[in-house]
This record gives sequence, C-alpha cells and structure tokens, in this order.
Amino acid sequence: MTESLPQSLLPYRERVLRALESAFPPGSAASGVEGAMAYSLFAGGKRIRPMLCMLGFEAAGGKVDRVDAIAVAIEMVHTYSLIHDDLPCMDDDDLRRGRPSCPAAHGEAVALLAGDALLTRAFTVIAGATGLSAEVRVRMAEILGKAVGQDGMIGGQELDLLAEKVPVTDRQGVDKIHTRKTGAFLTAAVTMGAAAAGATEEAIRRLGEFGDHLGLAFQIVDDLLDLTATEAEAGKRVGKDADRGKATYPSILGMDESKKLAQMLVNRGIDALPFDTDGGHLAELARFIVTRIRTSESR
Amino acid sequence: MTESLPQSLLPYRERVLRALESAFPPGSAASGVEGAMAYSLFAGGKRIRPMLCMLGFEAAGGKVDRVDAIAVAIEMVHTYSLIHDDLPCMDDDDLRRGRPSCPAAHGEAVALLAGDALLTRAFTVIAGATGLSAEVRVRMAEILGKAVGQDGMIGGQELDLLAEKVPVTDRQGVDKIHTRKTGAFLTAAVTMGAAAAGATEEAIRRLGEFGDHLGLAFQIVDDLLDLTATEAEAGKRVGKDADRGKATYPSILGMDESKKLAQMLVNRGIDALPFDTDGGHLAELARFIVTRIRTSESR
Repeated sequence: MTESLPQSLLPYRERVLRALESAFPPGSAASGVEGAMAYSLFAGGKRIRPMLCMLGFEAAGGKVDRVDAIAVAIEMVHTYSLIHDDLPCMDDDDLRRGRPSCPAAHGEAVALLAGDALLTRAFTVIAGATGLSAEVRVRMAEILGKAVGQDGMIGGQELDLLAEKVPVTDRQGVDKIHTRKTGAFLTAAVTMGAAAAGATEEAIRRLGEFGDHLGLAFQIVDDLLDLTATEAEAGKRVGKDADRGKATYPSILGMDESKKLAQMLVNRGIDALPFDTDGGHLAELARFIVTRIRTSESR
Repeated sequence: MTESLPQSLLPYRERVLRALESAFPPGSAASGVEGAMAYSLFAGGKRIRPMLCMLGFEAAGGKVDRVDAIAVAIEMVHTYSLIHDDLPCMDDDDLRRGRPSCPAAHGEAVALLAGDALLTRAFTVIAGATGLSAEVRVRMAEILGKAVGQDGMIGGQELDLLAEKVPVTDRQGVDKIHTRKTGAFLTAAVTMGAAAAGATEEAIRRLGEFGDHLGLAFQIVDDLLDLTATEAEAGKRVGKDADRGKATYPSILGMDESKKLAQMLVNRGIDALPFDTDGGHLAELARFIVTRIRTSESR
C-alpha cells in the first residue's frame, strides 16, 4: 500500500520508527522468536495507532518524547494481533504487508511465541516507562488491557469467528464486531496519549468519541480495499471476506453508501475532537484514512 | 494427580481458588472464549505459583489478602502458557489435568484467543490491583513480564523447541532450558510476593535463589513423573518426552541421580530462604514438590 501520509504527519511516523528501533535494536536477531518479533514489527505498516497515541498526548499538551514507550507498546500489541490473526487456525494468511506473513516465514510455533512475546513485552515496556509516573503507567496498562482483551479486541475477533458460522446481516451486527475488534484499540491509543498528558475527563471522553468513529471508518475503508485493491496495492490477500461470505460494510450497504458512511464518520469524529476542529494533526490523520479509498480508486 | 498438599498449606490453596472465583465468577460463560478461559482456569491444578506469591508476601510481613489480585494474575499467566502449550503447533496435547485440553475441548481458534485473553487480563488485573500502590503494581508487572517473556518462559519454550531438532545432551543444556522455561516464573512468583510486601533487596535476592533451585527441582520431578506415572495419575499424556527424544533429567542423569538432585536442590533452596529455615510455609511447599515423586513410586 503506497498511499502517502500527509507531510505534516511524517515526522510522527519517523518518531514511531525510531522509538521502535530503540526498544528493539535492528539486527539483534535474524531468526528464532526474537527474529520473528522483529520481522513483523519492522514489516512496514501505517503506524496509525502509535501515531494516534503521540498526537493525543501532544494535543493534550504533552511533550511528545515522553510518550514514546507507550507508543511502542501500542505498536507491539498491534503487531502481536496481526501475527496471531495470520495463524492457520485464524485467518490463515500467508501474505502480509507485501511479504510472507510471520507464520509463513517463521513457522507456526515460532509465530505463536513471537505474538505472545510481543504482547508480554508491551506491558513490560509500559510498566517500565521512564518519564511517566507510576500512576500514569498503571492507568495506561489498564486502558490498553481492557481495550485489547476479552471485552475489546479479542471479543471482536470472537464475534468475527462466530459470524463465519451464523451470518451477520445488518449494520448493527457489523458495527458490534468492529467497535470491539478495531474501534476499541484505536480509541484506547488516542485516549492513552491524552490521559498520559493529564487531559481532563471531558477531553478524554470526546477523544473516545473521535476514536470510536475513526475505528468504524477505518474498518469500512479496509472492507472497501479488500474489494477494490489489488494484492500488490494492499500487500495482503484481497477478496477473502467475500470468499468466506463474511458480512462487511460494502456487502450490507453497497459500495457507495459505505464510502459515504466512512466520510461521514470521519467528519463526525473530527467534530468530536476537543482540541482542534480542522487544522490539527488528529483531524489530518482522520482525513488520511478516507483518502486511502480514493487513492485506490484513482489507479 | 492426587498427591495431597500439606494440611498447613490448604488454606492458601483455598484462598487462591476464592480469589480466582471472585476475579472470574463461575458460570459467567460456558462457551466461547470466556468459557474456554474459565474451563482452563478452573481445571484444578496445584496452584503452586499463586501460593508461592502469597507465601512470599506473608513471609515478608505482608497481610495475605492484599496480594490476592497478584496471585490471580500469576495463575492466569500460568493457565495461558498451558493452553498455548497444548496447541497443535506446540506440544499438541489433547489431555490436561485428567480431561480434554483446552484446544481439544474448545477448538484451536478459541483456545488461542483464550490464552491471549488470559495473558492480557493478567496485566490488566495487576494494573488495577487495589490495596497496592501504583509503584508496587508497576514493579509487579515488570517482574512478571520479564520472567514470562522472551528472556524468560517464552525463551525457554523456544530452546525446548530447538532441542527437538538439535538434541541437548548434557545437564548444562537441560538446566539452561528449564531455568528459563520453569524457573524464571516460579522465582518471579515468590519474589513478586516479597517485593509487594516491601522485603529488602537482600531478602528478595535470597528468595530468587530459593525460586531458582525450586524451579529446577520442580522440572526434574515433572520429568520423572512423565516416566513413572500413569496417565490417570498425571492427568495428562505421559512418556511423550521420551517419544520425542527430548533430553530430560532422567535421560541424562538416570532415575536415581535425578531423584537425588531434586532432593538436593530443594534442600539448597530451603537453605537460601531469608525468613525461615525449616518450619515455614515456603519450606513446606518446597518439600511437597519432591514428595510427588515418592507418592508416585509408592503406587
């Protein structure tokens, strides 16, 4: 996927990459579990979640470098979730970000352990994050744990598995899956940043609303790209949702309505922002998400 | 396995069970990921690790109920590790604690997610543990994360996988695997308890030594039981180590030497205890571990 991030956000993506490299020095291991962790962590990726954390922190008045460890932990959790998703017993994907998925490249057992190790490392990194008080660190761990655990991302994964057996046929059903599977984590990323900077509860609540809208928009775009992008563009197998009879936004609402809905959700998300209503970086990141559809169409 | 815990330790096992039930109310879900988590969490088990945590806390002067959440988190991590171990890509075990393993009973995908969810929940529980300061909670999460991550338990798992391809033939090699795979976590459990109660660094260091010895003794006993116990006694498939040509303590040292070594390690562990050298509960728990061999022999 070569869609390009707005210029103003590039320094944040750079910062995420440098923080990841400092937490996980490149070349430390080429094989084994450590190698598999690095393989997936440095496979590219848009780095949306750690950027959301940094931007939430900065928007709430924090100085960005203090939240680097939290951003790293967030990307580690995201990477673990992709690795376990690609396992044969889950989505069984052999292609991810334009190259063999972690299980395809490193074998199933090593991939399983690499995911486990990244999830474990994420919480260890948060617990040891210097520059943030112990109170902030336990709050970060709690927000993250709830968002990606059984009541959040894992619960959404489960609903997604169930939907392969008992088809979901309405928007409410699809919303329910993706609010947990995608939305909860995106919301956690941005609210963790803001909470770490000491944002008010009201600001955090509004950022949560922003994250919820963004999460669904993000998923709609993913569903659309699964239908319209080529494998080279998407960097992963496409058309699998339809093959499995999975309910997606386009399958329920149609392509045009889905695009409109994604755009509307992004606008609503931006309206909910407590800090900046148009020019801010968070709004820019939100807008970038829907530009991915247009980039794909224009090809 | 019906080996019986010493009378004096029964209240601690009871306490672990009550704490688990309060963190995870029984009957909350019978199926799905939540059901699979409960299935494995309440499958019995000796509860050695959470007891070690409680006993370490109490020995260092803490009042036991304040560390309940930490003990629960420890047992959740242990349970996750067993579930992922039993997956087809790892040890592929269909029997655990006398009944179908989690993957055998709930399917591979659900078992994978149940393990992920238990690991996530463990850190969430630690982060939200009331009655312990934020400083203590982040320390708990760090000790645990390091012990069960890539430098600890997961690293030991990896060495164990590698040993199936390149046989380990000496005691040093087997020690290296099990210091990480079993020892690091047992050591973390007891030192977490002591650290939560504010034990001195010297006391924590000595407890670490106790845990290291105990961890190896524990593994030797497990290896011996894999050879001598029936499946009904062990509650899991036995003889698998030998079938796979895995290096174990008995395969390298012989049965008699292995038994002697386990006993010696337990004695050394007890000698290292900073608090009580004979009558204490930690010493009793250590002695209990080697009685498991005799119980098996006497049948």
